[in-house]
Amino acid sequence: MVPHTIRIFGIDPGLRRTGWGVIDCTGNRVSYVASGTVVPDEKLPLAGRLAGLHAGLAALILAHDPDEAAVEETFVNSNPMSTLKLGQARGVAMLAPAQAGLPVAEYAPNLIKKSVVGAGHADKGQIAAMIAVLLPKAGPLAPDAADALAVAITHAHHRVHAARVAALGAR
Amino acid sequence: MVPHTIRIFGIDPGLRRTGWGVIDCTGNRVSYVASGTVVPDEKLPLAGRLAGLHAGLAALILAHDPDEAAVEETFVNSNPMSTLKLGQARGVAMLAPAQAGLPVAEYAPNLIKKSVVGAGHADKGQIAAMIAVLLPKAGPLAPDAADALAVAITHAHHRVHAARVAALGAR
Repeated sequence: MVPHTIRIFGIDPGLRRTGWGVIDCTGNRVSYVASGTVVPDEKLPLAGRLAGLHAGLAALILAHDPDEAAVEETFVNSNPMSTLKLGQARGVAMLAPAQAGLPVAEYAPNLIKKSVVGAGHADKGQIAAMIAVLLPKAGPLAPDAADALAVAITHAHHRVHAARVAALGAR
Repeated sequence: MVPHTIRIFGIDPGLRRTGWGVIDCTGNRVSYVASGTVVPDEKLPLAGRLAGLHAGLAALILAHDPDEAAVEETFVNSNPMSTLKLGQARGVAMLAPAQAGLPVAEYAPNLIKKSVVGAGHADKGQIAAMIAVLLPKAGPLAPDAADALAVAITHAHHRVHAARVAALGAR
């Protein structure tokens, strides 16, 4: 069976800056497509910033036409106001792919670090270094874009694993 | 000068249940238009529930054609996971009116209670009782719908006050 290619849209949500990254995944091989950050106009009131974030992600999803999406589970901060702000951005970031009909998977930060670097306590620099190895065509990346690509790679690994388990179960 | 009528769409956001209420406001008189709750299918994954919430609010805004929106500031819970969930619903709830081009005002729960009941520590029963007095045509209401109407009334009071201050400043 020739494995077909699945395109994955990864998102690292944040109100000030949301990272995004697109990869193609064929079997368990991954390749870089595109990445960047959506930065809503911070002079706008909250509702306008959320609308800017949504419009940016919706346009990127339309342009890259992915099959599936993966979002980083927001770090639950000790500061409730920060948690609330992250939640607002995350709700909008999950909405955009859902409206495009994509399944949206969620991965905890520790699982992403473990999938990409091999250790749950990896720092941002280690993630960026592994992304450079795994996706050499990506070139220099903003930290949020690297994190979004890490979420997409995590999904690529886990969806293949899930499919293999299902295939074994079906024999 | 004959005051013109402004239609206000109030929202009390929540992931399981989001209350909404529409009032017309002419000078400082308010009248009931409609209210209810949006309840996304709780069997759906998070992204699907957020999409359901957004679609419900977007359809209601289209149907009632309000001029302005007002959203309750989410109660910041001591439980970070609850705060995160509320944040996600609130982000989507603020997005829908912003996408329709409405200005979206935010009001803290204590200010809403003070505006409607006259005391910042009023409970849900006291709010519902005051809504029944202020908007007699509303009839029996679900608690979330009553809260959404209370947000709308708070905005009606504050926008008139703000306009009066602006008019005094302009003399």
